[in-house]
Amino acid sequence: MITLGEVAATAGASLRGGDAATVITGVAPLPSAESGQLSFLINPRYRRFLTVTRAAAVILSPKDAEGCPIPAVVAANPHVAYARVATLFEPPVAVAHAGIHPTAWASPTAQIAADAWIGPHCTVEAGAAIERGAFVGPGCVIGEQAILGVETRLVARVTVCHRVRLGRRVLVHPGAVIGGDGFGLALDQGGRWLKVPQLGSVLIGDDVEIGANTTIDRGALEDTVIEEGVKLDNQVQIGHNVRIGAHSALAGCVGVAGSARIGRHCMLGGGVGIAGHLEIADHVHITGMSLVAQSITQPGVYSSGLTVEPNRLWNKISARLRRLDEMFRRLAALEKKIGRDGAA
Amino acid sequence: MITLGEVAATAGASLRGGDAATVITGVAPLPSAESGQLSFLINPRYRRFLTVTRAAAVILSPKDAEGCPIPAVVAANPHVAYARVATLFEPPVAVAHAGIHPTAWASPTAQIAADAWIGPHCTVEAGAAIERGAFVGPGCVIGEQAILGVETRLVARVTVCHRVRLGRRVLVHPGAVIGGDGFGLALDQGGRWLKVPQLGSVLIGDDVEIGANTTIDRGALEDTVIEEGVKLDNQVQIGHNVRIGAHSALAGCVGVAGSARIGRHCMLGGGVGIAGHLEIADHVHITGMSLVAQSITQPGVYSSGLTVEPNRLWNKISARLRRLDEMFRRLAALEKKIGRDGAA
Amino acid sequence: MITLGEVAATAGASLRGGDAATVITGVAPLPSAESGQLSFLINPRYRRFLTVTRAAAVILSPKDAEGCPIPAVVAANPHVAYARVATLFEPPVAVAHAGIHPTAWASPTAQIAADAWIGPHCTVEAGAAIERGAFVGPGCVIGEQAILGVETRLVARVTVCHRVRLGRRVLVHPGAVIGGDGFGLALDQGGRWLKVPQLGSVLIGDDVEIGANTTIDRGALEDTVIEEGVKLDNQVQIGHNVRIGAHSALAGCVGVAGSARIGRHCMLGGGVGIAGHLEIADHVHITGMSLVAQSITQPGVYSSGLTVEPNRLWNKISARLRRLDEMFRRLAALEKKIGRDGAA
Repeated sequence: MITLGEVAATAGASLRGGDAATVITGVAPLPSAESGQLSFLINPRYRRFLTVTRAAAVILSPKDAEGCPIPAVVAANPHVAYARVATLFEPPVAVAHAGIHPTAWASPTAQIAADAWIGPHCTVEAGAAIERGAFVGPGCVIGEQAILGVETRLVARVTVCHRVRLGRRVLVHPGAVIGGDGFGLALDQGGRWLKVPQLGSVLIGDDVEIGANTTIDRGALEDTVIEEGVKLDNQVQIGHNVRIGAHSALAGCVGVAGSARIGRHCMLGGGVGIAGHLEIADHVHITGMSLVAQSITQPGVYSSGLTVEPNRLWNKISARLRRLDEMFRRLAALEKKIGRDGAA
Repeated sequence: MITLGEVAATAGASLRGGDAATVITGVAPLPSAESGQLSFLINPRYRRFLTVTRAAAVILSPKDAEGCPIPAVVAANPHVAYARVATLFEPPVAVAHAGIHPTAWASPTAQIAADAWIGPHCTVEAGAAIERGAFVGPGCVIGEQAILGVETRLVARVTVCHRVRLGRRVLVHPGAVIGGDGFGLALDQGGRWLKVPQLGSVLIGDDVEIGANTTIDRGALEDTVIEEGVKLDNQVQIGHNVRIGAHSALAGCVGVAGSARIGRHCMLGGGVGIAGHLEIADHVHITGMSLVAQSITQPGVYSSGLTVEPNRLWNKISARLRRLDEMFRRLAALEKKIGRDGAA
Repeated sequence: MITLGEVAATAGASLRGGDAATVITGVAPLPSAESGQLSFLINPRYRRFLTVTRAAAVILSPKDAEGCPIPAVVAANPHVAYARVATLFEPPVAVAHAGIHPTAWASPTAQIAADAWIGPHCTVEAGAAIERGAFVGPGCVIGEQAILGVETRLVARVTVCHRVRLGRRVLVHPGAVIGGDGFGLALDQGGRWLKVPQLGSVLIGDDVEIGANTTIDRGALEDTVIEEGVKLDNQVQIGHNVRIGAHSALAGCVGVAGSARIGRHCMLGGGVGIAGHLEIADHVHITGMSLVAQSITQPGVYSSGLTVEPNRLWNKISARLRRLDEMFRRLAALEKKIGRDGAA
């Protein structure tokens, strides 16, 4: 049973106009919250629902709290406060997990902490180390000499290849593959591709989150490195030898080609592509579906995505675009002529 | 043994110029069909093969049937007729599947219909419900309290996370992940990402098809919803809180960001990106590799994809594009000047 | 223990200025190599490290070998030479793998060569054939009547669907799905999608490599074909009926729509999209994030990707682009007018 006082304490927030003993039964958006539920105001477009919501209380900023008609949990950063409070309402884990499920297979040379969990149908290869409190959900494969740090959690069906090292509290969603071979190929005389052995590995820092079906390739010689606190969404592809700086966030379907270096605190929107062998400074924000083909040395927001128009108009634009160089030359010719005319 | 009469009946079509008792041994395209095989004419470019094909009969439209030199199965919609007939030629399932494979693991509290099938190395967690006639292929993971509706089919290696609900006759291809955490993050004072618990789930309607390695995130608070009859191709990414209207089709590699709402009967081409928190009306068609960054309120066809040119030409175009604003200003200056000159 | 002489022999290269008996302990890039390690010079930007490296020897071209201050392994193609040499330093496989792991399940009608390996938690369905020396890593699913050729290697968690045939020495990384249903749909009168049965299969040639979480759909009627020596990176999507010519390489996140035919020795950069039902000639190179919507008949380099600009500038460009057709018309009007003025 969670009380409003407990909510405020968890949020590190102050309670205004409510009874700390009020029981809170859940969380919900302002328009759909029922009595007893807690809500939050982060998106300003929802402010209008404050006067009509049935919520028992609302998390909001000091500014929005002025004149708020219901009990308020006032926090400087309501989004962070909400993130903390919401953990109180996560469904409890059904059973305590520790040990090795009878259907799992672990090499006798793997080192598995006593309080770690190896779920059904997992494979843990020779020399792997599963540290204290780690959770390996059903169907995961942990390769030879791989290391899963303390309290790391693989939800299900994750592949961690040989010698890959995950830090502490890493969270990996289903279908992710960490440490597959990089795309290293040499072209021989006959135009055939010769595979370049991928001898490096992958190093994942503490508190990294890796989305569903995301892939991170092992380095060709040295390691691919994902620094602490990085968040990768689903279906992100990270090439070999890449380094991603701490606390950067990459949205869904981003692709980063080999040997690119991305700074700290960067944000890449969905579908962004980063070419290989370049550097991106700290605090760079790339908007969705943009292509970065050269290094970026200054923090800031960068874009190259084009948004839709009605197809008929777009076809015209697109056809004109093909003649853009001609157009420039025609414009310059005109300027030259006018100059002459003007002088006449 | 399938006869031409059975073919016509299955197609809901009329037979013209053929013997209903003719045995049909298979289906093949017009150019490669052998005697005894059935073919079809959907793409008009294949009409020229009608006079040379060896096919025993052909499914086609009333218009194409005029003067057709071989037995004709005449249908108003030959594509639909073909889709129905082709089911007659699917390879039979090798064994009747019902029960739980000895290598699978199912929680004692899971409810599994007597005629459902749980394949090798599957995991079915506590409280999950597998309804009548459902088929769970090898290596699937069904989370706690998840529900698979009647006759739903997971081909292999599918992850259905906790509390996700699939409707009836849902078909899910290998590697798909339904109900992974959404990409919900709050930025704290120090520029670190705090995970926002994802408390919602995913609701999949009847007759939905989900492609290989496609990912659908669970909602942050309420459910991500895929309405009935929606078809998702491979490697599609659906963010949290998204709603996709009934009978829409999303081609391969489409990404839909969080809280977007897509209408009914929409078609998204391959690689399309949809930004978050926007709405797309019913009957909207987006062509391949376009970006939608604002709501679309009218049905129609929309585009923003640019197609390739020879690299040298493209580099010129691309360089000019960077000076497009300057070019507009120069053009306007010229217009102003000419106006003056003209008046002079 | 590997000697410099053995390195040169493996590389098919000549040794200049070193002792063939020198023991080589590993490989490393020029700047970080320690004494005893072998390095290589492929990227000209690394030439400056030749004078400061601690490497025991370096693989390089005849031209770079001139004046090289350390022992040189001189090869016409240093990249190919390095690829060969690096195999000497791959970590040895921990145990000899042959047989069927006790946790795997194989149908009694599957044919598995005596020296093949079926790893933990694999499923091998009825009638499948696993040929000599094949390696099936943990958690793979091999469908009915599928064939894995001699020395083919599935790293882990790969799905090979029914009747798919893989050639010799095919290498498949985790999470790949070969032979899922193509996206074949017919639209009925009511705007509902009817599934078109996918009766074809997939044929993979010898020496093909398939990346992590890549998906290759089975043909609608005939086979999807990946010819010998093709290399597919991670998260590539290949639609039904596609044919990819021998020795082509597709980088990460490429999508190829149904029935496209790609030539031999082609290179597609990351994130490229290929529309359906078109043909691309041999020796075509498409740069990253380009869209190919029409056939390409001539070899060469093609592009349509746009690279980022600062967001403010991009927004201006993008707004102007929408008025490009108007701009053309204004320019033409001006030209017409100037012509008249000039004549006056």
